[in-house]
Amino acid sequence: MKLNVTQKLIKDHLVSGDMTPGEEIGLKIDQTLTQDATGTMVMLELEAMGLDYAKTEASAQYVDHNLIQVDNKNPDDHLFLQSATRRFGLYYSRPGNGVSHPVHMQRLAKPGKTLLGSDSHTCANGCMGMLAMGAGGIDVAMAIAGEPFYVKMPKVWGIKLTGELPDWVGAKDVILELLRRHDVKGGVGRVIEYYGPGLKSLDAMDRHVIANMGAELGATGTVFPSDEEVKRFLKEQDREEDWIKLHADKGAAYDIEEEINLSEIEPLIAKPSSPGNVVPVKDIAGESIYQSYIGSSAQPGFNDFAMTAEIVKDKKIAEGVSLDINPTSRQMLTDLVQEGHIASLLQAGARLHQAGCNGCIGMGQAPATGRNSLRTTPRNFPGRSGTKEDSVFLCGPETAAASALKGEITDPRTLEMKYPKIKDPKKPTVDDQLLDKPLSKEEARNVELYKGPNIASIPEMDKLPDELEVPILLKMDDNISTDEILAGGARVLPFRSNLPEISKFTFEIIDESYYDRAMDVRDQSGHAIVGGHNYGQGSSREHAALAPRYLGLRVAVVKDFARIHWQNLVNFGVLPLTFKVEEDFNKLEQGDVLQFKNLQQNVKEGNDIMATVKGKGVELELTHALSSRQKDMMIKGGLINWVRERQNTNA
Amino acid sequence: MKLNVTQKLIKDHLVSGDMTPGEEIGLKIDQTLTQDATGTMVMLELEAMGLDYAKTEASAQYVDHNLIQVDNKNPDDHLFLQSATRRFGLYYSRPGNGVSHPVHMQRLAKPGKTLLGSDSHTCANGCMGMLAMGAGGIDVAMAIAGEPFYVKMPKVWGIKLTGELPDWVGAKDVILELLRRHDVKGGVGRVIEYYGPGLKSLDAMDRHVIANMGAELGATGTVFPSDEEVKRFLKEQDREEDWIKLHADKGAAYDIEEEINLSEIEPLIAKPSSPGNVVPVKDIAGESIYQSYIGSSAQPGFNDFAMTAEIVKDKKIAEGVSLDINPTSRQMLTDLVQEGHIASLLQAGARLHQAGCNGCIGMGQAPATGRNSLRTTPRNFPGRSGTKEDSVFLCGPETAAASALKGEITDPRTLEMKYPKIKDPKKPTVDDQLLDKPLSKEEARNVELYKGPNIASIPEMDKLPDELEVPILLKMDDNISTDEILAGGARVLPFRSNLPEISKFTFEIIDESYYDRAMDVRDQSGHAIVGGHNYGQGSSREHAALAPRYLGLRVAVVKDFARIHWQNLVNFGVLPLTFKVEEDFNKLEQGDVLQFKNLQQNVKEGNDIMATVKGKGVELELTHALSSRQKDMMIKGGLINWVRERQNTNA
Repeated sequence: MKLNVTQKLIKDHLVSGDMTPGEEIGLKIDQTLTQDATGTMVMLELEAMGLDYAKTEASAQYVDHNLIQVDNKNPDDHLFLQSATRRFGLYYSRPGNGVSHPVHMQRLAKPGKTLLGSDSHTCANGCMGMLAMGAGGIDVAMAIAGEPFYVKMPKVWGIKLTGELPDWVGAKDVILELLRRHDVKGGVGRVIEYYGPGLKSLDAMDRHVIANMGAELGATGTVFPSDEEVKRFLKEQDREEDWIKLHADKGAAYDIEEEINLSEIEPLIAKPSSPGNVVPVKDIAGESIYQSYIGSSAQPGFNDFAMTAEIVKDKKIAEGVSLDINPTSRQMLTDLVQEGHIASLLQAGARLHQAGCNGCIGMGQAPATGRNSLRTTPRNFPGRSGTKEDSVFLCGPETAAASALKGEITDPRTLEMKYPKIKDPKKPTVDDQLLDKPLSKEEARNVELYKGPNIASIPEMDKLPDELEVPILLKMDDNISTDEILAGGARVLPFRSNLPEISKFTFEIIDESYYDRAMDVRDQSGHAIVGGHNYGQGSSREHAALAPRYLGLRVAVVKDFARIHWQNLVNFGVLPLTFKVEEDFNKLEQGDVLQFKNLQQNVKEGNDIMATVKGKGVELELTHALSSRQKDMMIKGGLINWVRERQNTNA
Repeated sequence: MKLNVTQKLIKDHLVSGDMTPGEEIGLKIDQTLTQDATGTMVMLELEAMGLDYAKTEASAQYVDHNLIQVDNKNPDDHLFLQSATRRFGLYYSRPGNGVSHPVHMQRLAKPGKTLLGSDSHTCANGCMGMLAMGAGGIDVAMAIAGEPFYVKMPKVWGIKLTGELPDWVGAKDVILELLRRHDVKGGVGRVIEYYGPGLKSLDAMDRHVIANMGAELGATGTVFPSDEEVKRFLKEQDREEDWIKLHADKGAAYDIEEEINLSEIEPLIAKPSSPGNVVPVKDIAGESIYQSYIGSSAQPGFNDFAMTAEIVKDKKIAEGVSLDINPTSRQMLTDLVQEGHIASLLQAGARLHQAGCNGCIGMGQAPATGRNSLRTTPRNFPGRSGTKEDSVFLCGPETAAASALKGEITDPRTLEMKYPKIKDPKKPTVDDQLLDKPLSKEEARNVELYKGPNIASIPEMDKLPDELEVPILLKMDDNISTDEILAGGARVLPFRSNLPEISKFTFEIIDESYYDRAMDVRDQSGHAIVGGHNYGQGSSREHAALAPRYLGLRVAVVKDFARIHWQNLVNFGVLPLTFKVEEDFNKLEQGDVLQFKNLQQNVKEGNDIMATVKGKGVELELTHALSSRQKDMMIKGGLINWVRERQNTNA
């Protein structure tokens, strides 16, 4: 059978399931990537699992998100991450080294491999002929521990690129064109695979831009072939030996077919506040701007900064505009300095920031209230910049630079200058000075985890008891979101590495007394909660399952669950049950005590679960949808216990 | 009479008083400087005073402190400051342009002039032959409005410099030597004036380092002569015409005399947690370090960064060390880029930050808990770095760079290399791209102040009523600090430009019900408070007087006041009274109502103030210590009203 690149990558890594779109498949993971915002919990999970040493070919922990060090918490987290990478055999990319995705691409990515990352833009490395996917933290922890990653077999969306990009049009405009056509859900359940003669005019970093923002279409991943351009890129990085050729078979088919003629694309821009809200720049030219922001993993290349520099060179940015330059890696910053581009940017009036994610994830550079900010970043969701009433536009560096000069949104084709030709650095810098290599197994075993005062291990979790008698501490209605279960934001997130502390915020939006009431019975019976439809919708954050479990939640009885939260509950050993008779919801009250018997056997055998309301004579028929792997996990008390047992068996 | 430089500067600007040390003198102020942390309130005060246009020769507003933009508050503040500078005829140094003191020195400082700034390190510009002093915000607002600055005539402390700095010893070691000899109160009531043959080996930026940290000795100011070196510096800045010669008269005397032989100084370091805790570097060499921090207004020069670069060039910093580079101005960063020093720093493993104060005032780069941080900054007070349990050392760039290479505190003389000779840039960059010039009077009058949602004007304050009947809302013991009156910190300070919001935190540490109780009677009677000895000790923050006044505080009756808070109460129209009979303190209770009659006349005539406790038959004899200027001010309702009247009269 003739295979496309995506199918080849999947076939090479398939450990369970078959390749029918929509069916669950298990994939062997070769590489992982974690960043610091999600990574601390991943490392605590590895500790709780009792991992000895990473089983992947390469796993890297990047510090790029939490670079603002206003107190001990972030620097202490950095030291914890460093010690954990040393203990578990991972790479450690130190603060200031750069953004995970471009640094990974430069130093570690390999064609033909799978990459799983606890960051939604992990898909960016699909530009290297990899199957690169974002996932939850514990999925990545599992991958590091050698377990497969389970995902639904995607449809492959083949996009044939023809033509060649006109002057003043760049890679960002290509992905904005796709978002213009299909909006932010257009890629759900799909891997986007690019091919065709148009590839020739896109260098590896251009492809990174396009692959990165596949996440904005909701795609499972984005895949490019590994061709001569990938070889050239790896050679520049002194890694030519990591190259393999990887192309679709001649005549291979795609589940969905589409074509983009690059020659027909014009400068595009996504208006506030969705990456799918795309219009031609010329349609909104003239709106005044406050900020022009260059950088992020959605515009990481040397050429992107050099293009900006060439456009503003020997000119002055408009009065009142903040031109914020956010280098994506230290080694690239060195090249930009040495080629004179940083000097050009500075003389034009730019602000130069340290290498990292920075304002792209709301860590600095927030715009003033209601003022227009043009950004080369991937997302403009409301408030993501840090400013509640923000007004963020997404565009390429050509448009951002032209607009900085004019002080208003400007189609770069209207500038009175020739389209700049960027000169590549003769020999790009390769610099692993801030990328620490893994220790050997022997060295690693002597490393102790360093934990600052705000970092706490994940406590032991016991297995599912065979009998339970648990009070219902909360009865809730439909559509409870994970934000209501455990809020995000600046008040709560600093405790992301401290389960006992972060759990104090659990359900506080719904009932401030929950925490105290849960603690009262935590070490005796534990407790249950009852909910309506769509319980646990919204953000995928794991803490929304982990924190209630820490407080003694054993059973969640609801009308139905939101998919990801359901999975998180299972992962952390909370039994998720639904009513067989939905009206039974009305028979339950806060304060009722639920009694369960023979739980282990009933879970194991997939039977319905019967519960009695103590002293009320009410019987409930409940059910669960656990797979056989999940049943085993649930009985053992969750994924961490389950993996720990496997680690010990294999050791 | 033969005069030293300090006396010449004072004599040239004297508008009241005579030049006897300890006596109050009034000085004409030629230039002012505000930074963004203190500047927003200064601008609101100018608005409340009804200022038309600045009466100084040059006043500049710098944005260098609050560069971390995690939400709308800081960027909104920046836009407010920009609009205020346009309205009132000030210079505006935009975010990213650099640290106030070195930028002011480069672009605006003039020998022979006075400079008043709402930043304690304003004294740094004494390196230019100026009398430069730090002061409270409203003092600077007054100066902008053309009012004199009142200060006690200082003693002049003449320090004769002889010899020449040895290799590996720099300007920071000179001021650390002075701190070693005299500790942090050694300069109180004095201006430090440097002279002698040793000056020749100190360039203008070296002198800036020494003048800057005069603040750490508690000095009123630091003065250097304006000599050929100052001329050379101004010429580099295309401002040779601003130079005048300014030397002490031959044979001029000093109130205190001292000598420093530069040849005898060795590398010094201030240990945690006081700038006065100075020892030779060699005494503590070998202690491991976490961070090495280059920059700040206490080490702002091109040479300081170039020295660091030359020391680490073609080497690698030790594993685990964070070498943080904080450029002090954009134009200097351009030179450092063009001379190759930034490339040298990056290849060695440095993190490059944006130009600004940054970690020096706890805005980023906080060290991990308990880890040693070496900094070229002026202060290592406990917790100033942002980390509660910090361990900060102060030293010069030679020691900081050598220690970054070794990973431990290192005497730079032990490095196996020749002492680097720094090559000056041929033609240093002059770049006013982010330094907006004042508008003309006519243009300025058309400017409206821009106020984001978190910025509120200072409300009108009424004049002192002739009769008062005010309840005592709080009775407090001795040593109440301004931190207890109105806390600082990250929870409160974001509301620094919003009096109604920040006032909600008033006295909350002492009594959470105060705010509500004050608001209940705010628009009827107002209220009084009663305190013990040393009322209002600690930080000089104006908000601790302004916020209670906003809530209706009319009278503070205490045993005695801390000096600065007393002055702040007077400035904002709260009548500060002390008991003539201290035991009367015991006759008062919270809830008592104090009655005053003929207040205006009694204040005016300097009589004792009699008060009756309503319904208790208790009579109190109270007194005040207001000068005639202050009496006038008090009756008018405070300094803002007083100045507004003068502005209108003069307009």
